Amino acid sequence: MSTIKYILPENEMPTSWYNIQADLPEPLPPYLHPLTKKPLGPDDLAPLFAMELIKQEVSQERYINIPDEVLKIYRQFRPSPLYRARLLEQMLDTPAHIYYKFEDVSPAGSHKPNSAIPQAYYNMKEGIKRLTTETGAGQWGSSLALACSYFDIELKIYMVRVSYEQKPYRRMMMEAWKGKCVPSPSLDTNAGRVALQADPNNPGSLGLAISEAVEDAMTREDTHYALGSVLNHVLMHQTIIGLECKKQVEMAGEYPDIVIACAGGGSNFGGIAMPFVHDNLKKGKNTRIVAVEPSSCPSLTKGVYAYDYGDVAGMAPIAKMYTLGSHFMPPPVHAGGLRYHGMSPIVSHLHKLGLIEARAVNQLATFEAGLTFARSEGFISAPETNHAIRVAIDEALKCRETGEKKVILFNHSGYGYFDMTAYDTYMSGKLTDYEYPSDKVQEAQAGLPQL
Amino acid sequence: MSTIKYILPENEMPTSWYNIQADLPEPLPPYLHPLTKKPLGPDDLAPLFAMELIKQEVSQERYINIPDEVLKIYRQFRPSPLYRARLLEQMLDTPAHIYYKFEDVSPAGSHKPNSAIPQAYYNMKEGIKRLTTETGAGQWGSSLALACSYFDIELKIYMVRVSYEQKPYRRMMMEAWKGKCVPSPSLDTNAGRVALQADPNNPGSLGLAISEAVEDAMTREDTHYALGSVLNHVLMHQTIIGLECKKQVEMAGEYPDIVIACAGGGSNFGGIAMPFVHDNLKKGKNTRIVAVEPSSCPSLTKGVYAYDYGDVAGMAPIAKMYTLGSHFMPPPVHAGGLRYHGMSPIVSHLHKLGLIEARAVNQLATFEAGLTFARSEGFISAPETNHAIRVAIDEALKCRETGEKKVILFNHSGYGYFDMTAYDTYMSGKLTDYEYPSDKVQEAQAGLPQL
Repeated sequence: MSTIKYILPENEMPTSWYNIQADLPEPLPPYLHPLTKKPLGPDDLAPLFAMELIKQEVSQERYINIPDEVLKIYRQFRPSPLYRARLLEQMLDTPAHIYYKFEDVSPAGSHKPNSAIPQAYYNMKEGIKRLTTETGAGQWGSSLALACSYFDIELKIYMVRVSYEQKPYRRMMMEAWKGKCVPSPSLDTNAGRVALQADPNNPGSLGLAISEAVEDAMTREDTHYALGSVLNHVLMHQTIIGLECKKQVEMAGEYPDIVIACAGGGSNFGGIAMPFVHDNLKKGKNTRIVAVEPSSCPSLTKGVYAYDYGDVAGMAPIAKMYTLGSHFMPPPVHAGGLRYHGMSPIVSHLHKLGLIEARAVNQLATFEAGLTFARSEGFISAPETNHAIRVAIDEALKCRETGEKKVILFNHSGYGYFDMTAYDTYMSGKLTDYEYPSDKVQEAQAGLPQL
Repeated sequence: MSTIKYILPENEMPTSWYNIQADLPEPLPPYLHPLTKKPLGPDDLAPLFAMELIKQEVSQERYINIPDEVLKIYRQFRPSPLYRARLLEQMLDTPAHIYYKFEDVSPAGSHKPNSAIPQAYYNMKEGIKRLTTETGAGQWGSSLALACSYFDIELKIYMVRVSYEQKPYRRMMMEAWKGKCVPSPSLDTNAGRVALQADPNNPGSLGLAISEAVEDAMTREDTHYALGSVLNHVLMHQTIIGLECKKQVEMAGEYPDIVIACAGGGSNFGGIAMPFVHDNLKKGKNTRIVAVEPSSCPSLTKGVYAYDYGDVAGMAPIAKMYTLGSHFMPPPVHAGGLRYHGMSPIVSHLHKLGLIEARAVNQLATFEAGLTFARSEGFISAPETNHAIRVAIDEALKCRETGEKKVILFNHSGYGYFDMTAYDTYMSGKLTDYEYPSDKVQEAQAGLPQL
């Protein structure tokens, strides 16, 4: 018995991204301006984003060509392998066929470079010399530092303080690629200073780090801002994952019954899921598509679907999404990439339309799944990825009960090498669970913008 | 401009290892028994190693079949990619063509599983339930923990204390794969207790950790010992690297003028080098083959070629090799995998015969090379690997002077994700160099066994 690897030939790598906006049964609600509360136009976004990315954000074209320069860098690590997890299947004694798409292979160790590279590229093409961004667990920050080093762009990263302290290695990695990384809240922005004045021990949040990065970019001519998840263009860049998967499951002679990914802002989930949502909508397929979030930060399963601020300071666009409120401070769980208060508008819309499912799982159960995976397939997974593994294992165990040979595909979004202390905490019995308090929902609703 | 990746089709993966003993112009000097000082027989090794590995150690067959069960696990991450480093070439402005074989892709992140997997397999086949080993930087210990988890073997790892303290993440990784890891010297063995009695702050050495692991294995019926480098069978398992490389440079339409790898015990160097030594010996090729070691632990360039103990306590076989003396305590440089006092008998023999070259480089220069590599090719390399990168860059810079289009191939033996603090120390200007003191050589000679 052994794991099987499906390698897509390089000339079969997709050369376009898939834009689900072309296929949505109802269009996405527009973004609103945080001050005027009116629908946003391209000019409103121009101080922050390259014009090409703004066009992609609202494009209704089904496929958008990937620039040659981006394809060349993608080819350093793409197409990524698809694995049939036969060692895990054996350990679980399940008749299910479990596949995982392996996004660990980029130099930054996750799916994030799939969007970081085109974002840096388009900004470089438009003459931008400096970018700002925020990062939670550090996967996005390090990926953008890598991408900026390819295109010789200066980068400043606002890293959520709790992760900055938990994950010094990620900061060092960003610095190895010449990124400048500061803990957020910082003294470098007004938003940061206000937060620190109110609470000098503020652990930070993605929403607050976004405020800092946006403010920094707004106040400098040579600087744009880059976001690692949530936005339509980011999710679209990630569709290369799902597009490759479709070819690879075909190589394996199968088609998934269930597609699973973890969801924080929604980028790795959207990336693997949307090409399969397309098949459900357009090709009569009937695949279950499951987004997995932490029970400590359960925007899809316990949030409200409403227009909300994307950041703490109310500087980023207002979006219609599932949200726990822009001031929600999630507990310091180890899956730092899943601690955003909201959810990508596309993923939220798909959920509202009933085109995808959502599941919340607790932290202890995800680490247990991660160790099961490491002790069968060998790979040590990011805490975020462990959420997807948890649900994949649960579905495979259901198949053991029913005898069904379901085909389960999940996105292995990244490795856990910078998260070994989290595994250590779990293995030594010191890890705890956090449940989202039900009274928080009212608080979230109270903080929504008045439209 | 972009990096180019050469992927060998899975059905082209070698199914035999190459055994250079079949082609040596002079045979290897035999191992000696540490007590009797007589040549070792298979029976002397039987308490420590599986019989199949003992046979491989002395085999004169040119090719030895890789068992199917090992091939299946290899295929999870092999064939590994060969990269043409065009981004690095561009940064160096060199006409040289630089290739690197990318061994980072195994779940343990280095070349070490190439030998860990067959070693665990043969021991499992012969009914062994428990293995012991030592580890320096942790690459070997984690690889063997991974391999033992595939074959359900219990593992105890004696980790050089200075690395145990510098690299807690590696210990946690071993534990994730169910390995039991203790700092060496430990209180669990006689050798460890003696060392701690003499110096409670003993930072440990590979030679001492070997003594502990060998003693542990000798005193338990169900237990064998596994070594991650130095021995002939270990180097032979690693030849899959060089055998794949030969096919991949052919895909690229080239043949290397220079082959480079770092050398501590010699396993990744031997693995990439020996198939090219074969071509020099048997096919009229004239490739320069360069082993790179740290100037702080320069066995090939400053050691003596003599019979010496493989470990501190004099329990492991005596081998003819370049050595700095079995009691040499190398300074705590970050390339923990390159801190062994001796050098593989095969590599030593090849060097003595003039079939390979050796270079010593200092620590600061290797980190500078590692950052140059990370800022062009993207990948962050192990401190050990940075030694090979240093010499590859030096050779490429020579080509810039002379205008020669040399083809340079080096072994990218592993990633540096567990070594980010070393990069941090370097980037913050706090890293220091260590030069091997010339008066130490006499000391090494004085400590050699009386034959």
